[in-house]
Amino acid sequence: ILNWQCIYDKIENVVRRRKPSSGRVKRAALKNEYDRDPEMRKKMEAYVLDLQSRIVTALEEIEDEGDEASAAFDGVERRPGKKFRRDPWERPNGRGHGLTCVIQDGSVFEKGGVNVSVIYGDLPKAVLERMSAYQTNMELEKVKSMKFCAIGLSMVIHPRNPHAPTFHCNYRYFDTDNGGMWWFGGGSDLTPSYLYEEDAVHFHTVLKNACDKFGEDLYAEFKTTCDLYFRNTHRNNEMRGIGGVFFDDFDRFEASKSFEMAKSLGNSVIESYCPLVRRRKDTPFTENQKRWQQLRRGRYVEFNLLHDRGTKFGIAMPDARTESILMSLPLTARWEYKHSPEVGTEEAKLMDAVLTPKDWVSL
Amino acid sequence: ILNWQCIYDKIENVVRRRKPSSGRVKRAALKNEYDRDPEMRKKMEAYVLDLQSRIVTALEEIEDEGDEASAAFDGVERRPGKKFRRDPWERPNGRGHGLTCVIQDGSVFEKGGVNVSVIYGDLPKAVLERMSAYQTNMELEKVKSMKFCAIGLSMVIHPRNPHAPTFHCNYRYFDTDNGGMWWFGGGSDLTPSYLYEEDAVHFHTVLKNACDKFGEDLYAEFKTTCDLYFRNTHRNNEMRGIGGVFFDDFDRFEASKSFEMAKSLGNSVIESYCPLVRRRKDTPFTENQKRWQQLRRGRYVEFNLLHDRGTKFGIAMPDARTESILMSLPLTARWEYKHSPEVGTEEAKLMDAVLTPKDWVSL
Repeated sequence: ILNWQCIYDKIENVVRRRKPSSGRVKRAALKNEYDRDPEMRKKMEAYVLDLQSRIVTALEEIEDEGDEASAAFDGVERRPGKKFRRDPWERPNGRGHGLTCVIQDGSVFEKGGVNVSVIYGDLPKAVLERMSAYQTNMELEKVKSMKFCAIGLSMVIHPRNPHAPTFHCNYRYFDTDNGGMWWFGGGSDLTPSYLYEEDAVHFHTVLKNACDKFGEDLYAEFKTTCDLYFRNTHRNNEMRGIGGVFFDDFDRFEASKSFEMAKSLGNSVIESYCPLVRRRKDTPFTENQKRWQQLRRGRYVEFNLLHDRGTKFGIAMPDARTESILMSLPLTARWEYKHSPEVGTEEAKLMDAVLTPKDWVSL
Repeated sequence: ILNWQCIYDKIENVVRRRKPSSGRVKRAALKNEYDRDPEMRKKMEAYVLDLQSRIVTALEEIEDEGDEASAAFDGVERRPGKKFRRDPWERPNGRGHGLTCVIQDGSVFEKGGVNVSVIYGDLPKAVLERMSAYQTNMELEKVKSMKFCAIGLSMVIHPRNPHAPTFHCNYRYFDTDNGGMWWFGGGSDLTPSYLYEEDAVHFHTVLKNACDKFGEDLYAEFKTTCDLYFRNTHRNNEMRGIGGVFFDDFDRFEASKSFEMAKSLGNSVIESYCPLVRRRKDTPFTENQKRWQQLRRGRYVEFNLLHDRGTKFGIAMPDARTESILMSLPLTARWEYKHSPEVGTEEAKLMDAVLTPKDWVSL
């Protein structure tokens, strides 16, 4: 039970958030404003499996093209055309299943994974009791337990070339059998070692377009959430990269429209990222630039292991599939004592971008 | 205030532990059985600074000797004789000071640090109030705040050669101005990439000898604590290495004798570790052995960032000196999806040792 603390805490937070701060506690306070769609689990699973397949295909096409610069750099002939390893898995006793797709030591992609997981769990009585402390009048009092389901795609790609950025995204759906809770969460974000402003503008513009159909302020809201979330608080609050979008506990529209919004962002993954890798993967680079990339990957590791809620939640789960969770880590990383780029360099320009959020789409 | 949560939690735990579980709550329950030595801060600081100087000298002597195998391996001529960089630092407003000694990219030592820190802090009223909830009758009720001091040496050394083990130790003292709390904590542990049983026996025997003068069961107790603490719980509970000793909240003897015990272990650092580096640093190694070392360093990073209380406490402190705390990370590390050594190999032998604690001194 202790190991599930993360998800319990999260659910409690959502419940707290939904509790009217004053006035009579309403019976429906725990429930979403909009009803849950009983077919949503099926729809979401079908969607993320299809998205995963499309993303893997798109990345394999890039992998086929090779990275001339890396071959020239280290003299290692890597045959292009490496495929993702497809690794289906199942949790015992019908508690979930998934498909992990991993690429490693490719010609273009040093390491990366696209993972779909479907997890079934059960909130125990103790958690339900804590919940009913917030609402004296809730249906849950009569329930012995609450089954939930979490379905998502998560993806991290670390290209070999220091000029090509690292990409991460995660799109997920959560609901409960009874109690009527449901929400979507997710986001995409970019982590370059070197800043190309036109790449940042492209990335953020694609994300903004994906959001705009659903509300004109959504992009700005999700971008801010992303900038605030992906921060190495122990490193002077520097961001992991140049951001993107991030949202959580999303149930603001009815279920079908919320799903459409998540899909709109999920569908933007290939367009937001693939052109950037193509644009940069053959750019020649130096020993120093490779070293800088490795130092930035060290920061990536620090964020993922020290701060990321997804990682913490993941490894704390009973029967956690550690290899699927930690596939987000790069193939290699580096740490130097007190390394700091010199003023006026390209490395310093990247540091400026991760220390101060920018409004990329207006550039 | 939130940022100090770790140390507050810890102090609360100590207070809870000391609270008599039944019977009348005694006035002295919060206080140690033995009085605090008002001179101990001075004595401890002088001791760890002297120990740091002796350790740095001993390691620089080894660095002078070079590592023939690493030079042959990567063809890089590294001039032996690299010195530790000495980096004194101060926290603003008299809240502490320290001396960080770091070596990086040496001939024998890839990265390492020996750090002394003296931290002054103040427990705020809210924490004191929570404390007095445990004892209605405590003197603390009259106190507005409680100043504390934490003094320690911590050290991590990652040699270049995969046959030479990584070493970590930490020896520290904590006390409060009023309230009379004090304790020692610390330990030494070894993390080889390849298991040499005679090295493990040497290491544990030196530690046992350092403990035995103070009680015949101490070594066994501290070894078990160490084996239980340095575990990657998300990796099937594998230990970070082959253990050593670890103790915390130690006030079982009067202050002077407790100090002698901590010193006995601190003084054993050089004898426990230096002969092992000398024995292994020139052992030839292959590409595969270097890769295995890098994978084990990945596990080291995982433990330090995901689980280590010292790291978590450190980076959560206001004005944390992140560079001193994360000097524990190796120069480079590696992660591969689902890497697992083949049965019967030297790598599998190491895995067996980290998955099953052994009674090294009886071998």
